[in-house]
Amino acid sequence: MANPDYAPMFSKDVGNFFRSPVREIFKKVDLNAIYSFAGGYPSAETFPLEDIRQCMSLVIDKWGGQAFQYGATQGVTVLREAVARRCGVTPDRVQITSSSQQGIDVCTRVLVDPGDVVLTSNPSYLGALQSFCSYRADIRGVAHVADLQAYRQAFETAIDKVVSEGKKIKFLYMIPDFQNPSGETLGLAERMMLVELARKHGFLIVEDSPYRELRYEGEPVASMYSLDPERVIHLGSFSKIFAPGFRLGWILANPEILDKIYVCKQSLDLCPPVFDQYVAAEFLDSGKLDKNLAKTIALYKSKRDLLLSLLEKYMPQGISWTHPEGGLFLFLTMPEGFDSVKFYDKALSAGVAYVAGSFFHPDGSGLNTMRMNFSFMSPEKITAGVKLLAELLRSEL
Amino acid sequence: MANPDYAPMFSKDVGNFFRSPVREIFKKVDLNAIYSFAGGYPSAETFPLEDIRQCMSLVIDKWGGQAFQYGATQGVTVLREAVARRCGVTPDRVQITSSSQQGIDVCTRVLVDPGDVVLTSNPSYLGALQSFCSYRADIRGVAHVADLQAYRQAFETAIDKVVSEGKKIKFLYMIPDFQNPSGETLGLAERMMLVELARKHGFLIVEDSPYRELRYEGEPVASMYSLDPERVIHLGSFSKIFAPGFRLGWILANPEILDKIYVCKQSLDLCPPVFDQYVAAEFLDSGKLDKNLAKTIALYKSKRDLLLSLLEKYMPQGISWTHPEGGLFLFLTMPEGFDSVKFYDKALSAGVAYVAGSFFHPDGSGLNTMRMNFSFMSPEKITAGVKLLAELLRSEL
Repeated sequence: MANPDYAPMFSKDVGNFFRSPVREIFKKVDLNAIYSFAGGYPSAETFPLEDIRQCMSLVIDKWGGQAFQYGATQGVTVLREAVARRCGVTPDRVQITSSSQQGIDVCTRVLVDPGDVVLTSNPSYLGALQSFCSYRADIRGVAHVADLQAYRQAFETAIDKVVSEGKKIKFLYMIPDFQNPSGETLGLAERMMLVELARKHGFLIVEDSPYRELRYEGEPVASMYSLDPERVIHLGSFSKIFAPGFRLGWILANPEILDKIYVCKQSLDLCPPVFDQYVAAEFLDSGKLDKNLAKTIALYKSKRDLLLSLLEKYMPQGISWTHPEGGLFLFLTMPEGFDSVKFYDKALSAGVAYVAGSFFHPDGSGLNTMRMNFSFMSPEKITAGVKLLAELLRSEL
Repeated sequence: MANPDYAPMFSKDVGNFFRSPVREIFKKVDLNAIYSFAGGYPSAETFPLEDIRQCMSLVIDKWGGQAFQYGATQGVTVLREAVARRCGVTPDRVQITSSSQQGIDVCTRVLVDPGDVVLTSNPSYLGALQSFCSYRADIRGVAHVADLQAYRQAFETAIDKVVSEGKKIKFLYMIPDFQNPSGETLGLAERMMLVELARKHGFLIVEDSPYRELRYEGEPVASMYSLDPERVIHLGSFSKIFAPGFRLGWILANPEILDKIYVCKQSLDLCPPVFDQYVAAEFLDSGKLDKNLAKTIALYKSKRDLLLSLLEKYMPQGISWTHPEGGLFLFLTMPEGFDSVKFYDKALSAGVAYVAGSFFHPDGSGLNTMRMNFSFMSPEKITAGVKLLAELLRSEL
């Protein structure tokens, strides 16, 4: 018997899913066999294996079978309380998520109808763009510019256009700290301006903050959530401060919003992974997470410094890059006309990977840009990788 | 400043989410402080804590940092291979899910547009109904009847009605083994009839199979998936054969269907919990899972037998119940006119919980039914709980 014709069986949503070019890279190549500036992977040496082993054993002693049973949809109480303490909020404003990516997805699900507008930075996080597309959001990206008034004006222009089209903005999605992919951080005045725009035009802000605690220089800037906790939904993640293999994140929001997210999450997956939550709570409460985080920050700072010095030394003229104060990424801009998508195959054949910047631009621009990660590889591989990439670029430009 | 008015910000989907009455019960009462026949919880004594502790330590030794890193969206290779071997399929037909509930959700997402019809049994699993509703599916329940021709006719009538309305059936959702909530198992002839109907009318079948391996008597019946692997999507779960706290399940399907699910899952949560997957793979491959499962089956069989004998001994006249050959539940039918939703408050005040049967009926019928779980409580509590429930029912009837 011939297979059924599946095409007419699929939902319309399926046509709006798009594959992550980053994840597609990972399917094809062994990241350890090449010089990979591509992923957003933490360095495996930052996972405190012996502490985790002890902590897991402790969780089994302390919680017994409860650690392996079904759990509350909102997350287990000890983890919600630990996150609440860390973030300076009450536990009723905390929802634990099965990854920060789920936080993005579930916020989009409860806020966006097909055709609704989501404002983002241009460029923005690819996984968020995937989620927005999957719900058929109309994504409008606004590029960052240094001048505050010009930046505000760019948003006002985008907003006016949406209003003139009779459409509705549901939220602004921003990664204000050490942005993915640009590595840039918004100043306090910019954050205040955006919150004020949200109030004025009646939309919410989704503040995605996975890298906030990975700061290597300068002073922390107030989170957008702290500027208006009723207007801003804050997404946190254990992936960059602990380990991504646990797939745990959190949402801070007004309880009325969290209630919708809670009911949605019941039908998505009932509850976050339970044992993993107890382990994360134990790591937070014992101070082990902060102890390990301090080491991670020192390591990543040295890698960032190394990458910056190597770029300075080896990159050909005409290429510029951002100077991230934290996080995992910096962003390169090549001369106009350079095609980082086309160049990618050449680079990969030679043994070095990055992510083409255009993938992060909802408007498809940024063809002459690329994202480079500095957390994953060893200093030796970063060094060899930059030399190789610089050589390839020199022959291309 | 007043809080924003959130109501106009929410998506239309939000209006289609409904709260699980089962999960609402869990929020209000301490399950260990009452006699609870309500949940679908495994007994915590079936979680092999010492084996899990050793296994976790082994995973850390064997996989190191990789166990805590991001993983493949399809699931880690060793777990996909272990599941494939267990199920007798090739690994390209296996997608690991972050819970079997996610399996239901993601299948619905990639198959159903608002208004599309999903056929189910009547009654059916509440979490599935939640998911179908959230995507605005038009749910049509068909009650099981013993006579095969009459059962087939009931489906043909329901299908004809859908066709006459110009609507499209996307899939039939069935739990053929030890159904939740009824405890009933479909015979081979019934399964073959349903697969044939699906072929004839061009819809798919989603076979939800979390309890299949918990059989206490009789011979296994061929899975619907085995009858037509291109037409049937099979959902499996580690929750009942290992532990629900890991939130791991799997989907078996034609690779063309799995590819859509894969892309959808990228934007849902990137990948399933990684460490938990290595632990599950180790448990499967070492034979520890099967060893523990044999103990679980013996325990649940004795609890089922106990519950059946207690019902026989204590329940008043006019109440009947199913005789499940496996799984976690049986289903009680009280005389016509009995209201198990109204009776619930009285029962809970007295210290005994169940789930009202009407919650499982997409057409709202079944007010005189209730679901009883026999896996969660100790034999002593099952005994005291049945006595109390019988006494309350006697004074009500």
